[in-house]
Amino acid sequence: MSIFTADDHHYMQQALRLAESATRRAAPNPGVGCVLVRDGAVIGEGATLAVGSDHAEIQAIKDCYARGQNPAGATAYVTLEPCSHHGRTPPCAGRLIAEKLGRVVAAMVDPYHEVAGRGIAMLNAAGIPAAAGCLQAEAERVHRGFLSRVTRQRPFVTLKGAATLDGKTALLNGVSQWITGADARRDVHRLRAAHCAILTGSGTVLADNPQLTVREVACARQPLRVVVDGALQTPPGAAIYDTAVAPTWLATAVSDVARHASYLARGVRLLPCAADDGRVDLARLLQMLAADGINELMVEAGAGLNGALVAAGLVDEAVLYLAPYLTGDAARGLFAWPALESLDDKVPLAVRDLRLVGRDIRLDLVFPPR
Amino acid sequence: MSIFTADDHHYMQQALRLAESATRRAAPNPGVGCVLVRDGAVIGEGATLAVGSDHAEIQAIKDCYARGQNPAGATAYVTLEPCSHHGRTPPCAGRLIAEKLGRVVAAMVDPYHEVAGRGIAMLNAAGIPAAAGCLQAEAERVHRGFLSRVTRQRPFVTLKGAATLDGKTALLNGVSQWITGADARRDVHRLRAAHCAILTGSGTVLADNPQLTVREVACARQPLRVVVDGALQTPPGAAIYDTAVAPTWLATAVSDVARHASYLARGVRLLPCAADDGRVDLARLLQMLAADGINELMVEAGAGLNGALVAAGLVDEAVLYLAPYLTGDAARGLFAWPALESLDDKVPLAVRDLRLVGRDIRLDLVFPPR
Repeated sequence: MSIFTADDHHYMQQALRLAESATRRAAPNPGVGCVLVRDGAVIGEGATLAVGSDHAEIQAIKDCYARGQNPAGATAYVTLEPCSHHGRTPPCAGRLIAEKLGRVVAAMVDPYHEVAGRGIAMLNAAGIPAAAGCLQAEAERVHRGFLSRVTRQRPFVTLKGAATLDGKTALLNGVSQWITGADARRDVHRLRAAHCAILTGSGTVLADNPQLTVREVACARQPLRVVVDGALQTPPGAAIYDTAVAPTWLATAVSDVARHASYLARGVRLLPCAADDGRVDLARLLQMLAADGINELMVEAGAGLNGALVAAGLVDEAVLYLAPYLTGDAARGLFAWPALESLDDKVPLAVRDLRLVGRDIRLDLVFPPR
Repeated sequence: MSIFTADDHHYMQQALRLAESATRRAAPNPGVGCVLVRDGAVIGEGATLAVGSDHAEIQAIKDCYARGQNPAGATAYVTLEPCSHHGRTPPCAGRLIAEKLGRVVAAMVDPYHEVAGRGIAMLNAAGIPAAAGCLQAEAERVHRGFLSRVTRQRPFVTLKGAATLDGKTALLNGVSQWITGADARRDVHRLRAAHCAILTGSGTVLADNPQLTVREVACARQPLRVVVDGALQTPPGAAIYDTAVAPTWLATAVSDVARHASYLARGVRLLPCAADDGRVDLARLLQMLAADGINELMVEAGAGLNGALVAAGLVDEAVLYLAPYLTGDAARGLFAWPALESLDDKVPLAVRDLRLVGRDIRLDLVFPPR
C-alpha cells in the first residue's frame, strides 16, 4: 500500500470536485477529474468531456499550456487510473509519459478490463512513479455509476420516494398529488439531472401522466426515461412518450411487434424483456440499460415497482422525502410486497444523511449489499 | 409592553433552566425558576419544590441568605408571575415585598385564576417595579403542561410513536417487537420521566403486556399509568396493574362495579367515562386527568388509540422514532382512522426537531392547534 501525504489528499479532493461536476456530461465514460501540481501550485485542471472528446488528463495538460506553463515534472492527481488503451481517444498514460510528468497519483485503479492496472504499470515502466489508492473510498463514491456498470453490469440504482410522515403516497381511493413542497420538488429535479436515466412504471404513467424531465434546474442533457409496462397498458399518447422532449425506452413483456407500432411511431425504443412469469425481468432490464451505457439510474415509481426492485435486491440507495402530514393507515404506501411472516425479514437500511428540505424531511438511505 | 435588556434575557434564561429541571417534581404546580441578581452578580437561585413546600422565589431567597447575602434591592427573575394568594403556601409576592426586592421581572403572567396579574399588581402597588413578558415564548414552552391544564382543562399531550421508515409498527400477522435501537429506547424512558402520566390502550396491554415505567434513566417519581380499556378486556394480572411499581388508573366505559373488583383489588383506580357510543370518552378522560393534576401526558399506544386521539384533536405534539427498516405495505401502521376521501383532510404537522438517536431517526412534531 502506498502512503500519501496531506498535500496529496488536498489536491485529490480538488480533483474529486472536478470529477463530480463532470460525471453527468462524461457518461457513459467515468467523469474523471485531474489536477496538475508543481512546487506547491496548481498549474492545470481538467475533467472528462463528452464521449469521444478529451479525458481529464488531456484537458488538464491543455489547461496547463493555456496558462503558459509546461507539465513536465509536475504531479498529476487523477480520480481514476489513466487509461492505457486506444478507445475513442488515445491512451492518457501514453500522453502523461510523452509530456514527461514527474509523478502520478490516482485515487483508484480503473476496473474496466482494458485498463485494470495497466495504466499505472505503463507509467512506472516509463520511470514515472505512479500509485493508486489516495482517497479511494471517496472516488468510489463519485464514480459509483461507472463502477457499478463495469463491475456489476447494472447501473447504480437510487430510488426516490415521497410520502407523508406515516409512509403514505396516496389515498385509498387513488387520489394523489404532490404532497411534498416546492423545495423538495426542485431537489428532485436536481437529483434527476444527476442521473443518466429515470425508471418508472405503468401505474405511475396511468395515474399521474408525468413527464419525468428536468425542468426546475439547469440541465444540458435530459435523462433517458424508461417505462416498465409489462402488458403495454400505458397509452402511446402519454406525456412520457413525447420523445421530442427527451428519449424514452419502454420495457415490456409483450413480444407481439404489432402492439409495439404505436409506441415506435412516437420515437420510443422498445426493450422486450419478459421473465418466465410473463412480467418484465427487472434484473435483465438493468443489464440491458448498463449495456447501453446507463451508469446512474433513478427510480420514480409506485409501490408495485418500488417493492419489486427492493425485493429483488436491485436498489442501492433511496432518497426519501417525508412531508409533514398524516393520512392514517387506510392509504397507499411506498413499497408493496407480500406480507412478511417474521420481523427478521424486514429490509435493513443505513441512514447516510438526514436534513430538512423546505418543510419536508429528506432521508438518504443505503441498502446493504446482498 | 415592557422593554427588557440583554442582561434581563441572560438571567431569565438561567431561571428557565432551573424551571425545566423542577417541572416534574413540582407537578401539579408549575416548576418555576427564580434567580436573584444584584450589581451584575447572581446572589440566589431557586426552583419550586414538591407540592406544599417552597415555591421558587422562597428557595431563591433562602439560597441568598445561605450565601451570606441579603436580597434587599436585588432584581428577581422568575419564569412565572409570583403568586398573590394563600394556597398551600403564603403568597410569594408578599414575601418579595417584605424582603424589599428592588425589581421583579417575570417571563409571563400566571393564567391561574387566583393570580392572573395580581402578583405583578401587588408588587407595583408596593413600589417595586414589576413587569412580565421577558422570554415569554420560552416560558410558555417550559410551563406548557401547567398552562394546558389551567387554560384548557386538559394535559399537554405528547404522542410517542416508533415505526419503520415506511411507517409500520408490526407485521400483518400481529408480530411486533422493539424495532428501534437501545439509544431510542433509553430516550423513550427519558421522555417518560418528564411526564406526569403515560396513556396506553387495551390493545397494547394485550399485545405487549408492557410495564410503561421509567427504568433506563434515573427517576425520583414514576409517572402515573393510565389504561384506556372501554370493554375491560385487559387481564387484571397484566404487568401494568402492578401498583406496587407505579400507580395505575383504568378508564373504562363499563359501569358495572362488579366488573371493577379485580382491578380495584390490585390497587387500580377506576375512571368510568363512557361516551354516548359506548366507548371511552377521550376528551372527558383528559379533563378528568387535568382535574387530578396531570400537567404532561405521554401517549404510548397502538394505531387505534393514537388515531382516535389525533382525529379528536387531542394531541399537541408527537415524538416519532423511525427505525431504518422497511416492512412493506402489508403491515400495521401508526394511526388508524377511516380512509380519507380528500387529501385536503390530511393532518398537517410542523417539524420542531430532527435528529439521529443511535441508528434511529427522532422527529419532534407539532400538531397545529384547532
